[in-house]
Amino acid sequence: MTMIQKVLIANRGEIAVRIIRACRELNIKTVAVYATVDRDSLHVKLADEAICIGDHRLENSYLNHNAILQAAVNTQVQAIHPGFGFLSENADFVRACERVGITFIGPSADLIDKMGDKQTARETMIAAGVPIVPGSKGLIHDLAQAYQVAKEIGYPVLIKATAGGGGKGMRVCYDASLLEDAFNQARQEAFNAFNNADVYIEKFVEGPRHIEIQILGDKHGNSVHLFERECSVQRNNQKMIEEAPVQNLSSKTRKKLYDVATKAAKQVQYVSAGTLEFIMDKDENFYFIEMNTRIQVEHPVTELITGVDIVKEQIRIAEGKPLSFKQSDLKINGHAIEIRVNAEDPDQGFRPMAGTLNGLHFPGGNGVRIDSFVYQGYKILPFYDSMIAKVIVHGSNRDEAMEKAIRCLEEIDLDGIKTNVDFQLEILLNQKFQDNVYDTTLVQTLLKGDKHV
Amino acid sequence: MTMIQKVLIANRGEIAVRIIRACRELNIKTVAVYATVDRDSLHVKLADEAICIGDHRLENSYLNHNAILQAAVNTQVQAIHPGFGFLSENADFVRACERVGITFIGPSADLIDKMGDKQTARETMIAAGVPIVPGSKGLIHDLAQAYQVAKEIGYPVLIKATAGGGGKGMRVCYDASLLEDAFNQARQEAFNAFNNADVYIEKFVEGPRHIEIQILGDKHGNSVHLFERECSVQRNNQKMIEEAPVQNLSSKTRKKLYDVATKAAKQVQYVSAGTLEFIMDKDENFYFIEMNTRIQVEHPVTELITGVDIVKEQIRIAEGKPLSFKQSDLKINGHAIEIRVNAEDPDQGFRPMAGTLNGLHFPGGNGVRIDSFVYQGYKILPFYDSMIAKVIVHGSNRDEAMEKAIRCLEEIDLDGIKTNVDFQLEILLNQKFQDNVYDTTLVQTLLKGDKHV
Repeated sequence: MTMIQKVLIANRGEIAVRIIRACRELNIKTVAVYATVDRDSLHVKLADEAICIGDHRLENSYLNHNAILQAAVNTQVQAIHPGFGFLSENADFVRACERVGITFIGPSADLIDKMGDKQTARETMIAAGVPIVPGSKGLIHDLAQAYQVAKEIGYPVLIKATAGGGGKGMRVCYDASLLEDAFNQARQEAFNAFNNADVYIEKFVEGPRHIEIQILGDKHGNSVHLFERECSVQRNNQKMIEEAPVQNLSSKTRKKLYDVATKAAKQVQYVSAGTLEFIMDKDENFYFIEMNTRIQVEHPVTELITGVDIVKEQIRIAEGKPLSFKQSDLKINGHAIEIRVNAEDPDQGFRPMAGTLNGLHFPGGNGVRIDSFVYQGYKILPFYDSMIAKVIVHGSNRDEAMEKAIRCLEEIDLDGIKTNVDFQLEILLNQKFQDNVYDTTLVQTLLKGDKHV
Repeated sequence: MTMIQKVLIANRGEIAVRIIRACRELNIKTVAVYATVDRDSLHVKLADEAICIGDHRLENSYLNHNAILQAAVNTQVQAIHPGFGFLSENADFVRACERVGITFIGPSADLIDKMGDKQTARETMIAAGVPIVPGSKGLIHDLAQAYQVAKEIGYPVLIKATAGGGGKGMRVCYDASLLEDAFNQARQEAFNAFNNADVYIEKFVEGPRHIEIQILGDKHGNSVHLFERECSVQRNNQKMIEEAPVQNLSSKTRKKLYDVATKAAKQVQYVSAGTLEFIMDKDENFYFIEMNTRIQVEHPVTELITGVDIVKEQIRIAEGKPLSFKQSDLKINGHAIEIRVNAEDPDQGFRPMAGTLNGLHFPGGNGVRIDSFVYQGYKILPFYDSMIAKVIVHGSNRDEAMEKAIRCLEEIDLDGIKTNVDFQLEILLNQKFQDNVYDTTLVQTLLKGDKHV
């Protein structure tokens, strides 16, 4: 068992602050790393120590394995928490940590490798009995095979890059006459983006919902699920609003989701926090999309309905401790909604905005959690993700949580920069969202219907 | 049944903001009232309407019945929420509201009268079977009677003004030889402070704990308790830190407290939110002190462990709705601690401090609730209570809540004014507090032991 007394946080922004807070509450010392331009960031101010690791270019700082490991060795930490993004799903970095005897707070390099490649993940899940979207058994090698597979599973089909992410190397094809173009475009885009043109073909699920299951596993073979999240409010495959639990779901489907997720976790002997992402059609058929082998942006909604501190649990798991609860200890309490507040301009195609936050008021009060790293006077940088805060609310039911979310977005004051707050408010007030009958096409529909095209 | 669509909040500061937030979440419009000096206050900014009701002198503004009722009539509200302090326990004001057909969100004038006078409250509680501190059956009319009563109940005794509050008109007497002086001093002080020299005598409980029970009653005769709070961290009878539930309490005593509180609530047919305050000795004997017929500063700790929004429930009750839950629906979930952050200087005898808040960072994250009315650049006024924020934390157990409270006080940044934050941190880190073996003498002991004498 590793006794963790000091942790280096290989990240920035709100997730770095989130991890520092968890460490402080566990009496663990913290080391922040930061790019030159990030010296005024809150994670730097809150950590016990802070080490500059390079300039604003990601490869020189937050993606710089060498600089981060050097900082970790110099500050004598026992462990590194990667947060999300950056090095959180980088198996090479995990192996580099292992080589210097530093615990990576997350799953093993092999597991990250296994889940990082979409095709391997898909095959692993099939072996675990997890439903996947009907599609090619493996990679599609040529156009002739593409025609055959598409015919077998039926149009519309989706052509997807095996190394893909963020919607790149992905094409929907509704008809055989359009397949050749779609196939070539997807391969070309995949090659340009990932230096890997390999693609596979799946059944295209129209108007799907995005549902995911949070899991936690320890090094002793125990694993649990922490119920589900609805993340169907998305723009360009980027989540904007997340909820837990999913209210409009039959208890039969819910149980099946839990069973599948738990079985998958056991099958791969999952360690740390992970998420199984699914798409679900109107008949509640669900299919595995991918597994995220890290903490996620939307983890707080699960924390609010379960009372589990997922980051603290990750740290305990990394120390070799068994999970601090059993499946039967977990109960859903109320409803939680997370709103991502981004510094971006909806009127300019959601272009990220930099600038100084001249005025700042965060909403507070009963059932309101703010996870952020900005403060009044903070200069929002153009180099990183545009998310500047998460407003997370908890109510005794979905209606109360929704009223609370609306109240919070009406109360929040971010002076000096453009944000997506008004647009998020528009979504919260949308009838489909209110009635809880939305899917991943909601935002697109809203954008087509109004000025934000 | 009254349908409340608009509420006037007859208060300022964090409780006014708290009430406005609850109203917004219930889709109820709000009217703020404010003194001239309070025009930049957050409650003024957040309310749908705001009416200036007079200058900084309390009798001209927040205690000005006429100005407040005038504002209520002009803005056509259906109800007034008094918050705490100011007019919250003023039966005359409640009667004045009734006369103009405006619902007072709280109990009836008669009930406030009954509980507002200590002697009447005491007699009411005796009738309801609530244990009270052994003492005189009624007022003490002369010194001879004082000697006799003190002898009967045994020294040390406490001489208390019937109209008292805040420690005024109160004297402890350890020996018969000191009784004459104590009796005369208490009467004189009571007369000076309350224009009423009447006193009574009680057994003095040494090193008591302050434990209280939150109750809620509706207009249909239903009432429930919302468990207990520990409020023994006090300086000069002013609470500084509150916890819920009380961990070091036998289940037998806990049950007895609930029984007594529920019986009392039923006996007086209590309507709205109220609190029964008790002192408890080392053997867990507890005695009724007083009943607060209003929302209390420390209500959030109860909200965090029960999930009940007490202010929303007060509003529903005022509308004539039955309680939205039964006693059996209520469960204790984890542990909550509230830290009152005051603008005051512990090195100058906790003198209230005014001044501009040049910098402000409130802690956030998992399990942290901030109830406040200040913002960066806000000018703290010298005319009102020194409390500027409540940091309320919720953990799965007392240890986690304590670590979280410490983390929050280490993280909070209030630049430009002196506060009690470091002193509160000292209390949180004190071994007796950590071990949960403290009573109302804790702060006094701390103050005697160090520089803050």
